[in-house]
Amino acid sequence: MSTAWTSRYAQRTKGIKSSAIRELLKLTHRPEVISFAGGLPASDLFPTNRFRMTCCKVLEQQPHLALQYGATEGYEPLREVVARHIAGYGIKARSENVLITSGSQQALDLIGKLLLNPGERVLVEAPTYLGALQAFSVYGADCVSVPSDDNGLCSDLLEAPLRSGPKFMYVLPNFQNPAGTTLSAGRRHQLVLLADSYGIPIIEDDPYGQLRYEGEHLPPLVALDRENLRRDSGYSIGNVIYLSTFSKTLAPGLRLGWIVAPPEVISKLVQFKQGADLHTSTFVQRVAYEAARDNFLNEHVKLIRRVYRERRDMMLDALQQFFPPEVTWTRPMGGLFLWVTLPAGMNAQKLFDAALRENVAFVPGDSFYAPNGHQDDARRHLRLNFSAAPPARSAKAFAA
Amino acid sequence: MSTAWTSRYAQRTKGIKSSAIRELLKLTHRPEVISFAGGLPASDLFPTNRFRMTCCKVLEQQPHLALQYGATEGYEPLREVVARHIAGYGIKARSENVLITSGSQQALDLIGKLLLNPGERVLVEAPTYLGALQAFSVYGADCVSVPSDDNGLCSDLLEAPLRSGPKFMYVLPNFQNPAGTTLSAGRRHQLVLLADSYGIPIIEDDPYGQLRYEGEHLPPLVALDRENLRRDSGYSIGNVIYLSTFSKTLAPGLRLGWIVAPPEVISKLVQFKQGADLHTSTFVQRVAYEAARDNFLNEHVKLIRRVYRERRDMMLDALQQFFPPEVTWTRPMGGLFLWVTLPAGMNAQKLFDAALRENVAFVPGDSFYAPNGHQDDARRHLRLNFSAAPPARSAKAFAA
Repeated sequence: MSTAWTSRYAQRTKGIKSSAIRELLKLTHRPEVISFAGGLPASDLFPTNRFRMTCCKVLEQQPHLALQYGATEGYEPLREVVARHIAGYGIKARSENVLITSGSQQALDLIGKLLLNPGERVLVEAPTYLGALQAFSVYGADCVSVPSDDNGLCSDLLEAPLRSGPKFMYVLPNFQNPAGTTLSAGRRHQLVLLADSYGIPIIEDDPYGQLRYEGEHLPPLVALDRENLRRDSGYSIGNVIYLSTFSKTLAPGLRLGWIVAPPEVISKLVQFKQGADLHTSTFVQRVAYEAARDNFLNEHVKLIRRVYRERRDMMLDALQQFFPPEVTWTRPMGGLFLWVTLPAGMNAQKLFDAALRENVAFVPGDSFYAPNGHQDDARRHLRLNFSAAPPARSAKAFAA
Repeated sequence: MSTAWTSRYAQRTKGIKSSAIRELLKLTHRPEVISFAGGLPASDLFPTNRFRMTCCKVLEQQPHLALQYGATEGYEPLREVVARHIAGYGIKARSENVLITSGSQQALDLIGKLLLNPGERVLVEAPTYLGALQAFSVYGADCVSVPSDDNGLCSDLLEAPLRSGPKFMYVLPNFQNPAGTTLSAGRRHQLVLLADSYGIPIIEDDPYGQLRYEGEHLPPLVALDRENLRRDSGYSIGNVIYLSTFSKTLAPGLRLGWIVAPPEVISKLVQFKQGADLHTSTFVQRVAYEAARDNFLNEHVKLIRRVYRERRDMMLDALQQFFPPEVTWTRPMGGLFLWVTLPAGMNAQKLFDAALRENVAFVPGDSFYAPNGHQDDARRHLRLNFSAAPPARSAKAFAA
């Protein structure tokens, strides 16, 4: 009977809080709602024709391999494509440094599985990516917030938290989700040096770094770590594990991300991944490889940057035009999101309820904080996504 | 430097033993080796043309949805296809009882995540599926073996293990991996009644149940549980969680499995899956849905049964012809594997070394036992796969 599990076993199962965003997004799925709530890439930019071509190619040329079980590490040519691709962003890696994951959410899960024991601390930004809080909390982590401002994580406030003995630090340096902020060059150096001196590894999550709309690319933490600290000249990597994804460049529906780490870390993660899902779809990996190759990925990223830049500018203009002067917001140089701060005393949840009555949706900011992290301040914020909605719909929403 | 992780963090990371099979399979990948070692479905039976057609259809008709983020529970029409499909095997379920997973390996991982705390016991068959031992051990489970014979798990030896307070029992009733045995009808009833009376849930793993080559389909534990125990007439399910997969019927490279459970269990698993990989590839789910629909899956399963039955029979004939009379083996009524027992004192690992010199490979049996489970006996066994190798190659291998 349906009560068997709840009465017998449910009280013996581990707790996990349901995602507030998950429930909220259900409200925003009605077609009449103009939603700035999700973190969706623009589906009108998906390279559909390219995928159709590459699906046919993969199924014509090597169907027996593309549909069979595969290596846990990932499809070797795709690992090589990733290694070459990130070289363009300043990261030296070989395919042996790359593990293909089922989206970068799985990367977070595997890192939690590898490194975390119940009660251990993880340093996170305030605010930070909700999915990371979820992934780490499953392993009993105590996520501890470090303040951030318009230049990202406040690295001058890091010494005390680092001294408290966290297992690792989790940082999104580029066009952060949810804040849209970018960690400044000076703070990157400081962060890498401090983490190294305290022996605390850094998990660098970089889903958006390829989507920069202005300014110069800043060196990733994983590259600074090796350069600053004169790590040896090989391809192995030091104190930083780097994560990224094809979700924001090719398509999220593929569920393809990757981890860059020293070979001995990759080898341990491979063992955990084997227990978690054996391997990521061989078919999807081959389709992505064929789609990305011959410089298509780089050219496609240029197109995405052009379109998203326009959408960001349109949203910034609309905010300027329609929001009262007491409201402030970040001005992201890339990525998918910006972060709005309401005047003291205002509550983003109440604004959400009012906006939804006008068929406009966003995410109230308090979901993006670790449980102990700045809850009062959290209620004044909201996250807006500018990648998904075409400008015409957005303009209408702001006017309403 | 490359030693940073090993010196600083590796000793602080959780241990997991490397899969023996993983290392072994590397040896068997040379093209000249005739391998009975893997658990590979026959790639010559993959419905490649069907997939090519459905990929095009999905990318033509709804590319914006097929490539976008999707629901954690799975693609609703695919959940409905699964519910209808398993109805043909005696399982009443609605789509709300079905969670789509990234292969059924992920189902094992999510169940471990939901139910297990370090040191808790899980009852498993001796021998059992290696991947389940791996998945549960990550969560600190103590897997305790219950003996099995030619009729599957010895249910008359279950009372003492059940009294020892395990968290759940893990069983493969049909054409078991690795033994190829099938749990008899009488034992199924006994098992379900005992588990219910001790309040111990059953995880029923059924990747092969659709591939029966002779005899009548036996009722799944999940169906007996409801019938025998007069669970209420709705679609919710009681004391058994049922797992299966498209890996052995459509293709393993898709990485698509499913969990059937009461809605309140599904709802908890969904929360854990969200933290693990957000959701399984929307694209692959839609391709599988379009491939499976209109009765294609059932027709294709009939073809697989015909071909695998021939391959099984060929292997049984070859064993009869070439193996000495002191060697015995199971005669599986379905699935992919059979299980060979060498005379007392013989060691399957030594036979493996000798066979590999003749370019023939299999898996020595000791990998398939829980750490405390019957290790001496384990060395006398080996697992042979009959689905992957076409008969002509197999005959050559046995003759050698």
